[in-house]
Amino acid sequence: MHKIINDPVHGFITIKDELIYQIIAHPDYQRLRRIKQMALAYLVYPGAVHTRLHHSLGAYHLMTLALNELRLKGTDISDEEFQAAQLAILLHDIGHGPFSHALEHSLVDMHHEELSLMIMERLNKQFNGQLDMARAIFKGTYPKRFLHQLVSSQLDVDRLDYLARDSFFTGVSEGVIGYDRIIKMLCVKDDQLLIEEKGIHSAENFLIARRLMYMQVYMHKTVLSSELMLVNILKRAKELSRTGQKLFATPALDFFLNHESDRLAFEKDEQCLKYFLELDDSDINAAIKVWSRSGDVILSDLCERLLSRKLFKVVFSDQPDRDLFAQLKNQIQVQLNLDDKDLHYYLMQEVSSNQTYHAENERIRILFKNGTELDISEVDHSLIHAGLWYQ
Amino acid sequence: MHKIINDPVHGFITIKDELIYQIIAHPDYQRLRRIKQMALAYLVYPGAVHTRLHHSLGAYHLMTLALNELRLKGTDISDEEFQAAQLAILLHDIGHGPFSHALEHSLVDMHHEELSLMIMERLNKQFNGQLDMARAIFKGTYPKRFLHQLVSSQLDVDRLDYLARDSFFTGVSEGVIGYDRIIKMLCVKDDQLLIEEKGIHSAENFLIARRLMYMQVYMHKTVLSSELMLVNILKRAKELSRTGQKLFATPALDFFLNHESDRLAFEKDEQCLKYFLELDDSDINAAIKVWSRSGDVILSDLCERLLSRKLFKVVFSDQPDRDLFAQLKNQIQVQLNLDDKDLHYYLMQEVSSNQTYHAENERIRILFKNGTELDISEVDHSLIHAGLWYQ
Amino acid sequence: MHKIINDPVHGFITIKDELIYQIIAHPDYQRLRRIKQMALAYLVYPGAVHTRLHHSLGAYHLMTLALNELRLKGTDISDEEFQAAQLAILLHDIGHGPFSHALEHSLVDMHHEELSLMIMERLNKQFNGQLDMARAIFKGTYPKRFLHQLVSSQLDVDRLDYLARDSFFTGVSEGVIGYDRIIKMLCVKDDQLLIEEKGIHSAENFLIARRLMYMQVYMHKTVLSSELMLVNILKRAKELSRTGQKLFATPALDFFLNHESDRLAFEKDEQCLKYFLELDDSDINAAIKVWSRSGDVILSDLCERLLSRKLFKVVFSDQPDRDLFAQLKNQIQVQLNLDDKDLHYYLMQEVSSNQTYHAENERIRILFKNGTELDISEVDHSLIHAGLWYQ
Amino acid sequence: MHKIINDPVHGFITIKDELIYQIIAHPDYQRLRRIKQMALAYLVYPGAVHTRLHHSLGAYHLMTLALNELRLKGTDISDEEFQAAQLAILLHDIGHGPFSHALEHSLVDMHHEELSLMIMERLNKQFNGQLDMARAIFKGTYPKRFLHQLVSSQLDVDRLDYLARDSFFTGVSEGVIGYDRIIKMLCVKDDQLLIEEKGIHSAENFLIARRLMYMQVYMHKTVLSSELMLVNILKRAKELSRTGQKLFATPALDFFLNHESDRLAFEKDEQCLKYFLELDDSDINAAIKVWSRSGDVILSDLCERLLSRKLFKVVFSDQPDRDLFAQLKNQIQVQLNLDDKDLHYYLMQEVSSNQTYHAENERIRILFKNGTELDISEVDHSLIHAGLWYQ
Repeated sequence: MHKIINDPVHGFITIKDELIYQIIAHPDYQRLRRIKQMALAYLVYPGAVHTRLHHSLGAYHLMTLALNELRLKGTDISDEEFQAAQLAILLHDIGHGPFSHALEHSLVDMHHEELSLMIMERLNKQFNGQLDMARAIFKGTYPKRFLHQLVSSQLDVDRLDYLARDSFFTGVSEGVIGYDRIIKMLCVKDDQLLIEEKGIHSAENFLIARRLMYMQVYMHKTVLSSELMLVNILKRAKELSRTGQKLFATPALDFFLNHESDRLAFEKDEQCLKYFLELDDSDINAAIKVWSRSGDVILSDLCERLLSRKLFKVVFSDQPDRDLFAQLKNQIQVQLNLDDKDLHYYLMQEVSSNQTYHAENERIRILFKNGTELDISEVDHSLIHAGLWYQ
Repeated sequence: MHKIINDPVHGFITIKDELIYQIIAHPDYQRLRRIKQMALAYLVYPGAVHTRLHHSLGAYHLMTLALNELRLKGTDISDEEFQAAQLAILLHDIGHGPFSHALEHSLVDMHHEELSLMIMERLNKQFNGQLDMARAIFKGTYPKRFLHQLVSSQLDVDRLDYLARDSFFTGVSEGVIGYDRIIKMLCVKDDQLLIEEKGIHSAENFLIARRLMYMQVYMHKTVLSSELMLVNILKRAKELSRTGQKLFATPALDFFLNHESDRLAFEKDEQCLKYFLELDDSDINAAIKVWSRSGDVILSDLCERLLSRKLFKVVFSDQPDRDLFAQLKNQIQVQLNLDDKDLHYYLMQEVSSNQTYHAENERIRILFKNGTELDISEVDHSLIHAGLWYQ
Repeated sequence: MHKIINDPVHGFITIKDELIYQIIAHPDYQRLRRIKQMALAYLVYPGAVHTRLHHSLGAYHLMTLALNELRLKGTDISDEEFQAAQLAILLHDIGHGPFSHALEHSLVDMHHEELSLMIMERLNKQFNGQLDMARAIFKGTYPKRFLHQLVSSQLDVDRLDYLARDSFFTGVSEGVIGYDRIIKMLCVKDDQLLIEEKGIHSAENFLIARRLMYMQVYMHKTVLSSELMLVNILKRAKELSRTGQKLFATPALDFFLNHESDRLAFEKDEQCLKYFLELDDSDINAAIKVWSRSGDVILSDLCERLLSRKLFKVVFSDQPDRDLFAQLKNQIQVQLNLDDKDLHYYLMQEVSSNQTYHAENERIRILFKNGTELDISEVDHSLIHAGLWYQ
Repeated sequence: MHKIINDPVHGFITIKDELIYQIIAHPDYQRLRRIKQMALAYLVYPGAVHTRLHHSLGAYHLMTLALNELRLKGTDISDEEFQAAQLAILLHDIGHGPFSHALEHSLVDMHHEELSLMIMERLNKQFNGQLDMARAIFKGTYPKRFLHQLVSSQLDVDRLDYLARDSFFTGVSEGVIGYDRIIKMLCVKDDQLLIEEKGIHSAENFLIARRLMYMQVYMHKTVLSSELMLVNILKRAKELSRTGQKLFATPALDFFLNHESDRLAFEKDEQCLKYFLELDDSDINAAIKVWSRSGDVILSDLCERLLSRKLFKVVFSDQPDRDLFAQLKNQIQVQLNLDDKDLHYYLMQEVSSNQTYHAENERIRILFKNGTELDISEVDHSLIHAGLWYQ
């Protein structure tokens, strides 16, 4: 077993493990080829059409580099743990549905991590328990905590990959990070993942790059607008379906337009997961085009607007602006002659937030040469000061 | 009017012309966002998910650079011609349907250039004849021939962009070309597009890079196999549809499963073009998933194989290998219990060819400092020798 | 006139102006080929061997882009001003001597900008006053202030080039900036150079990248140490020379070891400038090797250490640490048996400071769509807060 | 021991071995910091100022990758062999003098590989025989032949690094190669280094890139001209010195201006090697500036021309052009009033040749999946045909 995959971001990704290869070849994983990593961001950044599969392969690659680096520095990692950590990161996003975060809780009423875990369990059965340890690492119940931190923490390989990859495919140079340097600076002490002192500037740059990517890309007004419109389209389609109207849809999409899809539903009805695993971006894309000619004025209008990129306007404000809201409400009612109960399809308020670094929750810990440790926000002369990042 | 688009390949693409902006914003052009440039190549190169829209924007950018360079060297290009050449390249691929070349003549029985011209004419009506000159340049009927050569010739901006872009998104460094240098070396003499002597090595490298990309990417066995399977899936779906079987499909796809779609049909029936412009990759992708559960054994088997990447095997040979063919035929009939008339879904022969440089058709002409011109294949010590490239 | 120069950082640099070509070809400018941009930083970053000539060509290229961009946005720039601004940036560093900043005031007792101006004046005579306007722009006396700001301000093309170039040649990804985007965001209002609102994140990233480069590269302890040792070597060589000892040296180096070299000296004695223009890194490098075998214990020891990379240690502290200083003094005196008056060759205190952004001096002004202007430190949610950057 | 060096070409170079670190820190190796890899090519490509030290560190890095790859594929490589192969490549260029190839046989009458071996032996004594195996690998006497092939053959890590590096620093994209892919395709069979079938296009691209770099960079007329002028300067300086004229020079340069420096001399006189190890580019650069004011008309004229980039003209021809030669001879004698015996300083004939691929000498062998082997020139459809490359 020795497969090489070309990755324009990291160069070559190597697969040398039979089990890992089988997981990658599994239809549930291959499905991620048809789900875009950045949902509708390609409406602003035309290159941003890379997929969840590509990202999770990239994160698997960085995990492999990180584990090798830690072993070289003397951290004890057994072959089984090595493989399990690789599997955990490979599968960390397998629970994403169409348009990733953009439709989370809209199409299916579940968090993608819960779904990832559910699918991992399903695969684990098919693979006779070979994913037990991977699952434990993913959930954070495996004794060696640092393995979980590599999968999910302030400085995990998931974030390293998505920042590097999103910045590559959008062409936004403000997001460029030295992920290779950060990986070389990782170390483990007392079962905690730390950054060596020499890596402090790379870690700072990583935090800042993430914040700049949020402001310039992830929270770009056009991107937010298109994604909110997509959410509304699904909401309207569900509303119509549940009042008996028959809409064009693939069987899988049809199922979720007409059924409950919360955790309870997934636990009770096996069909939920089966249909979920048939969904990808194409079900939604194909439907939107057909719906743009549907009889329902609201549905067809929203779809038509999205397809022809006539998007709603987004206004940011620090606090809810009641006057503006009331004024817009009037305007829309007059222009569109909408029922009060349908107004929310055209006027909505959402909270967006940038989650760069919250010192209270999670931490980037720096290990100094003299053996002491500090949170990056406590380091003298560092750019990342509590004062700045807490505001 | 001053729009800037981030392109990870070329940096920034600028739009300063109102008409060009309106064409880009037109739904017929935006449709290209949902058609992948390299069809199923992403099954081998996971990054190769870029779109026809991205490519044609890139080609438009290179056209702008080339026209500016030629003007600087004294070539007479009026503002109207400048804009028309930009429009011609922007629209050169607008006739591509789902999966670009892979489904050409399978889904719709037309060449994409004919369709591009048809759509251009349609747009021209909507824009009150403002595309007249662009159409003439695209067709090659405009008096200044070099403008057509920039759109379509051995060294046009179309090829410069797709090579640079495909090599960028696949991560195949063998396809890297110095397109910026080539553009700086362009010149016009006697209404012919030429390369200055100093650019000869860049032009050679371009031809070789193209050949290497054919061998490594475009004609990769896995890519060819998956695309032939896709062709067979559509063939089977058409066969079933035309014998009255009802298959899941969007209205647009349904139309082409059940109607003629050659030039005659497009000319007679306006619906052809209307439905064509509703098609994109998602119609096919959504259908394949549903068809993989269809009652027809052949259709569902082909779809299932494509989805789970269990692809047919491809064997290259210089000449048809009758013995191998007969042997495989037997094997397949025994194993799959197929009717003779259905065997072609599982066993086929195709001619693939690499079209790097055919000196008899088109030429890269080199202009020497002393004013003489030579075809690149005639230059002493050049790598591109007729002897090599004709074989 | 149409010359193209390959630049791995910016692609191709074009020269289309006869006067500019003559300046580049002038021996006083060509001399910059033999002066490294980053002095001894290559002892840490082996790729950092690029030259002052390369940097000033790159800055000239960015100036050309910036001027074109501003013209497109309607800023009035005459052809003569265009050329003069190009010349001003091309010559802005012509006053640098061997090892650039590292030996400033050590070898020659002048600031490099004063020398740049002196050499510009000399060239201006040779070119019959064709550099008059360039000089005025460089000095800041030309009426259109924004032209001077392009040459020298918080966000000038000098800084854009050196950050991009230094980060490219060191391989430090923390210094990567979107200089092309920043240039596209430049605009002029009321004769002030401003950044459009959309460019705010690129400007922030630029300020942060600069700070990170200071901490990671320019103020790297090994770099500082080697440069301080170089300063001491020159100081010792001067001391010995002025007490009559004959040291190996080129005539130009010999001159400065034995003569005054402050502004007064340059004004009185024409030889100063003539000899200065003969100096480059090689005079120093060749001398250090020979001096490492000189009879003077201090000189030969310092040279030997620098050549074999046995460098002094650097300790950073916020305030002078008298105890440490006293203790080291004792240690050195005991070990090396030095005279008190020579101790300063082995023990020194310097103030290093990072000059990222001092809001009181110079400003990056942001122009909002509604026409208002703000200093970047006053923008809500910006990363660059006075609070952070003043401390 | 765990050192990381930033390399803009390969990312990070890691040193984990104490002996290797000591060799790198040795003054004889550090000397390579002051010798440019590409001699005077920077007169055309301003970025081409990288050093022999940087190149040999890069080759060491690629060697490490290659050895790890081969081990993964089951090739037996002991830890001692691993280290020895690393040392062999690290030291393969240590015998280069000022301006690398350009002054080979002009300043010192020895081939750089002979000198490398001599210096390796000297170091071996200092390191108590720890370089025995490295020396054997370098010389090709070590039983495992493939280790020598990694150091020196058609597809060695030396060539992989210098092509990648030279193309990076010149910015010539025609030289871009997929060195990482080539390394992943290396394998060993019957003690021969081979390329796996899947790597054939990368190997072809490598050969072609090399040829294009020869034509575009290494044999660029301006580069050849400046290097021939440098050779003549040294020739003239030697001639003058040996007739008793005293020229400015460092002691090391002075030695070689006045002494024999062939193999015999190096063997007889220990001073030869001692002085050789004191030489670098700066001795020559400093001297040229001083000599440009020397009393000898020929020496000062040649130096002056080189400094101010007024270079001789180069004409390529397939065969010696006697008529042109005679004509130029006359012209020069008339213009410069030269003695016949000095004419060779202004008019010379040299043979330049491109050494891409000579099938008779060395080979790139391809290993097919079925176990057969072929020379790359024998592979059907390959670009590299004997017919093409022998001419």
